[in-house]
Amino acid sequence: MPSDAPAWSLHSRLKEDTIDIGDLPLCRVLVIKDAHYPWLLLVPRREGVVEIVDLAEVEQAQLMTEISRVARALKEVTRCDKLNIAALGNLVPQLHVHVIARRSSDVAWPRPVWGVMPPLAHDAEEVQNFISALRRKIWLG
Amino acid sequence: MPSDAPAWSLHSRLKEDTIDIGDLPLCRVLVIKDAHYPWLLLVPRREGVVEIVDLAEVEQAQLMTEISRVARALKEVTRCDKLNIAALGNLVPQLHVHVIARRSSDVAWPRPVWGVMPPLAHDAEEVQNFISALRRKIWLG
Repeated sequence: MPSDAPAWSLHSRLKEDTIDIGDLPLCRVLVIKDAHYPWLLLVPRREGVVEIVDLAEVEQAQLMTEISRVARALKEVTRCDKLNIAALGNLVPQLHVHVIARRSSDVAWPRPVWGVMPPLAHDAEEVQNFISALRRKIWLG
Repeated sequence: MPSDAPAWSLHSRLKEDTIDIGDLPLCRVLVIKDAHYPWLLLVPRREGVVEIVDLAEVEQAQLMTEISRVARALKEVTRCDKLNIAALGNLVPQLHVHVIARRSSDVAWPRPVWGVMPPLAHDAEEVQNFISALRRKIWLG
């Protein structure tokens, strides 16, 4: 990173609501603290970026590469019925991309997940197993 | 297209709910018939594709290029407060990417738009002006 690039930090709201599982070349990868759905976030480590179209073209391409890598890993780990991938950001302006594994048996199906249920705390061991499996697929797979 | 590639056609539900505004190299570009929000869809013309990760890597990159082009045009035409970009597909399996211009004054804000309000019919002249402005930006801009 050039020394004059503004320092990036994760938005406080995203920090509260997630578990950090590691960095890809562009994005931090996070798990949302909600056991209702296997739910990841990708956050490009670029200060001040709100929209996908604010990223440089080469970063947009890298974002797609990382979305695809993470989505494929999530699908393999969860054997879900459908992926939901979205950049909304109406509440938290820092650009973040949701990658969610949906099952036709989950509490919100077929609706989008946002706002349907208050978050459900994870079982500590289950979420650690989920994160270990994801890390193997994303960084080693 | 190789002659053995299966023929693509737009899903009947997407056809009913949209106005066709033209094709980019990968995707058909559609306007959703709902005057509550300036709301576009990008549908890759690839038969049988359900998930972004089902596309070949080069097509994923092209999808991002087209999302960005369409999102930028939509933002310029509407001067919206936020873009919402999403591939959900829990109801209609054919891969389609929503590109929605959100305003902090719209009926669903700050919630995602899906399921909040029944669609509102467009004024015929307004939607034609909107489509003309979009076409200029997307294909000529």
